[in-house]
Amino acid sequence: MKNTFGNNVSVTIFGESHGNAIGVVIDGIAPGVEVDREYINKLLELRRPSGAISTARREGDEFVIESGVFEGKTTGTPICILIPNEDTRSKDYSATRWLARPSHADYTANCKYHGYEDYRGGGHFSGRITAALVAAGGIIIPALNKKGIKIGTHIKKCAGVCDRDFSENIYDEIDSLYDKKIAVLDDSVADRMTDAITQAKKEGNSVGGVLETVVVGVNAGVGEPWFDTVEGLLSHALFSIPAIKGVEFGAGFSLSDMYGSEANDAFAYENDRVITKTNNSGGINGGITNGMPIVFRCAVRPTPTLSIEQNTIDMSKKENAVLMSKGRHDPCIVHRARIVVDCITALTICDMMTGRYGTDWLNSL
Amino acid sequence: MKNTFGNNVSVTIFGESHGNAIGVVIDGIAPGVEVDREYINKLLELRRPSGAISTARREGDEFVIESGVFEGKTTGTPICILIPNEDTRSKDYSATRWLARPSHADYTANCKYHGYEDYRGGGHFSGRITAALVAAGGIIIPALNKKGIKIGTHIKKCAGVCDRDFSENIYDEIDSLYDKKIAVLDDSVADRMTDAITQAKKEGNSVGGVLETVVVGVNAGVGEPWFDTVEGLLSHALFSIPAIKGVEFGAGFSLSDMYGSEANDAFAYENDRVITKTNNSGGINGGITNGMPIVFRCAVRPTPTLSIEQNTIDMSKKENAVLMSKGRHDPCIVHRARIVVDCITALTICDMMTGRYGTDWLNSL
Amino acid sequence: MKNTFGNNVSVTIFGESHGNAIGVVIDGIAPGVEVDREYINKLLELRRPSGAISTARREGDEFVIESGVFEGKTTGTPICILIPNEDTRSKDYSATRWLARPSHADYTANCKYHGYEDYRGGGHFSGRITAALVAAGGIIIPALNKKGIKIGTHIKKCAGVCDRDFSENIYDEIDSLYDKKIAVLDDSVADRMTDAITQAKKEGNSVGGVLETVVVGVNAGVGEPWFDTVEGLLSHALFSIPAIKGVEFGAGFSLSDMYGSEANDAFAYENDRVITKTNNSGGINGGITNGMPIVFRCAVRPTPTLSIEQNTIDMSKKENAVLMSKGRHDPCIVHRARIVVDCITALTICDMMTGRYGTDWLNSL
Amino acid sequence: MKNTFGNNVSVTIFGESHGNAIGVVIDGIAPGVEVDREYINKLLELRRPSGAISTARREGDEFVIESGVFEGKTTGTPICILIPNEDTRSKDYSATRWLARPSHADYTANCKYHGYEDYRGGGHFSGRITAALVAAGGIIIPALNKKGIKIGTHIKKCAGVCDRDFSENIYDEIDSLYDKKIAVLDDSVADRMTDAITQAKKEGNSVGGVLETVVVGVNAGVGEPWFDTVEGLLSHALFSIPAIKGVEFGAGFSLSDMYGSEANDAFAYENDRVITKTNNSGGINGGITNGMPIVFRCAVRPTPTLSIEQNTIDMSKKENAVLMSKGRHDPCIVHRARIVVDCITALTICDMMTGRYGTDWLNSL
Repeated sequence: MKNTFGNNVSVTIFGESHGNAIGVVIDGIAPGVEVDREYINKLLELRRPSGAISTARREGDEFVIESGVFEGKTTGTPICILIPNEDTRSKDYSATRWLARPSHADYTANCKYHGYEDYRGGGHFSGRITAALVAAGGIIIPALNKKGIKIGTHIKKCAGVCDRDFSENIYDEIDSLYDKKIAVLDDSVADRMTDAITQAKKEGNSVGGVLETVVVGVNAGVGEPWFDTVEGLLSHALFSIPAIKGVEFGAGFSLSDMYGSEANDAFAYENDRVITKTNNSGGINGGITNGMPIVFRCAVRPTPTLSIEQNTIDMSKKENAVLMSKGRHDPCIVHRARIVVDCITALTICDMMTGRYGTDWLNSL
Repeated sequence: MKNTFGNNVSVTIFGESHGNAIGVVIDGIAPGVEVDREYINKLLELRRPSGAISTARREGDEFVIESGVFEGKTTGTPICILIPNEDTRSKDYSATRWLARPSHADYTANCKYHGYEDYRGGGHFSGRITAALVAAGGIIIPALNKKGIKIGTHIKKCAGVCDRDFSENIYDEIDSLYDKKIAVLDDSVADRMTDAITQAKKEGNSVGGVLETVVVGVNAGVGEPWFDTVEGLLSHALFSIPAIKGVEFGAGFSLSDMYGSEANDAFAYENDRVITKTNNSGGINGGITNGMPIVFRCAVRPTPTLSIEQNTIDMSKKENAVLMSKGRHDPCIVHRARIVVDCITALTICDMMTGRYGTDWLNSL
Repeated sequence: MKNTFGNNVSVTIFGESHGNAIGVVIDGIAPGVEVDREYINKLLELRRPSGAISTARREGDEFVIESGVFEGKTTGTPICILIPNEDTRSKDYSATRWLARPSHADYTANCKYHGYEDYRGGGHFSGRITAALVAAGGIIIPALNKKGIKIGTHIKKCAGVCDRDFSENIYDEIDSLYDKKIAVLDDSVADRMTDAITQAKKEGNSVGGVLETVVVGVNAGVGEPWFDTVEGLLSHALFSIPAIKGVEFGAGFSLSDMYGSEANDAFAYENDRVITKTNNSGGINGGITNGMPIVFRCAVRPTPTLSIEQNTIDMSKKENAVLMSKGRHDPCIVHRARIVVDCITALTICDMMTGRYGTDWLNSL
Repeated sequence: MKNTFGNNVSVTIFGESHGNAIGVVIDGIAPGVEVDREYINKLLELRRPSGAISTARREGDEFVIESGVFEGKTTGTPICILIPNEDTRSKDYSATRWLARPSHADYTANCKYHGYEDYRGGGHFSGRITAALVAAGGIIIPALNKKGIKIGTHIKKCAGVCDRDFSENIYDEIDSLYDKKIAVLDDSVADRMTDAITQAKKEGNSVGGVLETVVVGVNAGVGEPWFDTVEGLLSHALFSIPAIKGVEFGAGFSLSDMYGSEANDAFAYENDRVITKTNNSGGINGGITNGMPIVFRCAVRPTPTLSIEQNTIDMSKKENAVLMSKGRHDPCIVHRARIVVDCITALTICDMMTGRYGTDWLNSL
């Protein structure tokens, strides 16, 4: 379903980078969930470009809750959050209207929408739209927390710099990530990442990375064998985030080099609770949660917008051309994308749990 | 939607490994598509266990087309294909009913279905169910071929042995894969793979690998920016295949180590056609096809069933236990899974094209 | 979704009147629900043609449960029920292949399926397909009964003969309907209806009627204001039953002639329970159940197949023609359709409740 | 899907009567469709309360197109239209917060949303939300007109006063309806209807009626036999309109009193085109269009809000109570609902056609 995702809890997104506003309609949230505007702002701030390693575009992200919230709580009816666009320098784009930026969606949009697309700043393809998903996450994540479910994404690798893994202290580590602009577990790597990104920027270039996400607190028995596996639903949603080109669960691609005896996660009772000794399966067997942390990683490609001359085509003149981008842009979006991953994950988990346990689940005791 | 997948063309699957039958309902196929029973048999044969590197279970896969085909052609109404189960040694499983096989779905099924699941041979979680998807692919793939779309999956890596990449001669190479039990482009590696799998089997162990798929002939402009991206729809379907734990498109996870200048695919006109000089994007920009081959890879974990003692739990006695599996099983399913990947890909492509161009598309001129 | 209906509990149907078999896949039924083959047979018998007022076609309706039931109970995975076709006299139809039977789907099928449709006996449009829905109902209805929900449909009117209304004793009256071939509350009208139908048959003609359905035991607070109202979901499903051309809830069309003061249902507490003094709303306010019986009526048109000469077209010769039908057919299907209405209602109610209360609802305490 | 309707073209609605705003997201509209703000305004004006026979609430219905329209044309991406609320006298409602208005959704909302619902003015249940659907229709209807499809609804009956039927001159008659506040074909009845409504209002009472809709220009072969019949999809959507309690197609309930020989619509060639001599089937056979006008009627119940004392319950005190409504309200909404019926019909037709002929259909030659 094009711009709507979710079966029992869903989001519908709309908006273009340089249009009037972007926004989201969140449907199926249980009634009575507290809505904390400060928390939504906090998450939006984590996504917002800032500092030398982001685009110079200033996004205020002032949002308006148009519906679905009454006296500070969700009503159970659809919540529309609108985020007006600001500081849009649309003229930046008109000169290069017909030059298809390499690895951007200009060419494919033109094929699909026959030239009627709002081309300015990537239009509906812009990463800006993810702010709407973050606003949605700003309502869902605290509610999941109250249900004992926590979601955290750290930058496993960026610009060639690697973070350490989650430790035993995973609940606290997840919490700490929400206080960091550069979401790494080993704080000492943050500066090195920033430096590497800054260096790429100086060269007019860009870098990518890998985001690793954990979800703790989901009980065993959620998900479907076919086709709505936990992996399938999460990946379906995650691949919507511009720049994500790979998703792997548990040990992921490295499983392909293991023997079964290495890959298998032995079950055991530990304090009357079923656990697995290892978690190569990423908390999912046969598409269904097994009670261990859900673990996955997303490959984030380097931002396609560069300040370097690139060969491309002029779609209007139908001839080869050279592009020298002048728009503001990010040399890296890994550190910004992580909160989008958190929010899309929160939505998907909330959808699965609501389907499993009914429409009141998110606000039940 | 649980056991149904697809918006405009859909499959609904049913069945358990040791039940009466497995099967599939395919809905939304254009009327007038030729149904070639021999071709369906050919694809089923490619999935069927055979030889030393597969389970000893003999699956005849005699199928019955119960509906939707009249005088050798599709009617446009739902096609049900039933595949009765044969050679089921159910007693193999009763002794270990309550022992949760590591990295299998026994435990998660028990949590979800409260013990009512048909546990024999993995029940509805069995890879056997994929035969139904292959039967569906046996109708869709030849019809896509007539529309100029070809889909091919080769074993990029298995048991540590690697195949070469597709060459310029990709259309012929795809065709050749349908004539090979071990789908490799470099025939010299087939024996080495088989040997490595056989060796693992002798040790009671299992191995995994990576499957690489290409889809050629899909025009530019198909897919959605949110949420039904080509990547999102394909990964959603692919993760249903038991054992797949990672999906990456184009250069995938390796993009995370590239600079933007390396990762970007330069557009160019070549013989009045738009191409990209490289294909790191895997034929998809902004969730939409760009006319280049769609390329993705799936990580296939080693089969979890081993003939080695494993630690686990007894779900009935609620205590730790040791499992020594005696059922027939595969030391590797990479070579069998590839045709399932082809068929699930065919279904997803057919669904997207039918949504884009209307219900008659698959059989239009 | 074409041949699939339901969000959390769904059915997928397939088959043609003269094909190999018809059948249904039921997905989302909670695990552990008892499956009583005798009860399924009982419901199929209520739908089966019999006696002078039905087609002479003998439908054995021997069904096979292919999947999803293990040791007499549902597993929680999809249930496929197959009903092979018998006693198909396909040659009856070939002579009139291109004559579009008035008010049948021959012409519209030809427009949609371009002549590839299985035309024999109405193919996929045949009322025969509803046997598959009845088999599904044979599993769902007893399970709903255990949850305190009862569904009953009586023939409000047929061939101009009217039945009385439900009385206070509604639970028993519903039960009694399942023991009657002619489902009327006032047994004295059954013969008059049968006579009137028989008379129409003698004249080569056919008759219709009105079915009235009640659902008791659904608690208040189920359904959605938009778009999945109880009325909307039920009518969506009900209009699939061939011959149904109108659906009204509560006082329905007669509300259009009332004043608000007559139409409004006054709320009141009665034994600490909220009731309404009247039930003109049919148990639904704002799309959501209010705890009173859900009441609706379906208009059933007279069977379009007649043994009377009719003007029509030859779709092949593209000229006007005269049709004299010789196939076996029903002079009335009102008495057979009622059990289909019950079963489709059961499915829809089960779907709504499962969405509201979670996937285990149907088998929870 | 709760607040989203449509498979290939969909609307998602949000908002409460006394909240910040109401609105709609329209997804799947082909790119390049002209958006005429004046036309949207014209349709909103037809729905807006005005004069003595409507609520005194003044609804400006100033709308903002937040996304999806660029340079006056649709982009192909989601269109969000926001309509801020004005003139909301919320205090009107607080005094009667816990009194369940008879035949309103106050009680059912309370059961479903546990008291968290925005109760003011009916909240999300308010007919006010239909303004968002009308705004959507304001884009779709002119585009359908360009494709040769016209939709018109007249007041067949209101307050006991009947309009005449459509004549041969149906295309012009449809056009004329869009210029009338009281949509009747026989202008002489408009005053009589208005008088009857005014009389009911004086008595603190309300009246209902029947709306009849025709859709001309849809070719044969659109719709599905199961479950997405034209009747099923339209009724699903139509029952969302508050106050609609019955939907019938063609001759509808009166078919139940006809013989087959009277009810059947004889096919014939007329000027090389297939027509039916009568149209008792309402343009639909077997769930699929036959090329004749699609005809249906909706039963509209009298507005439940009255200025007459009514017995009800106090949901907070859990005791019986008496309600004397003082809020502004409509003595009749039949004349306002008709444009909502047109717009919801336009959406559903557009969805079906887009599914049948592909995503570019609405703007193709």
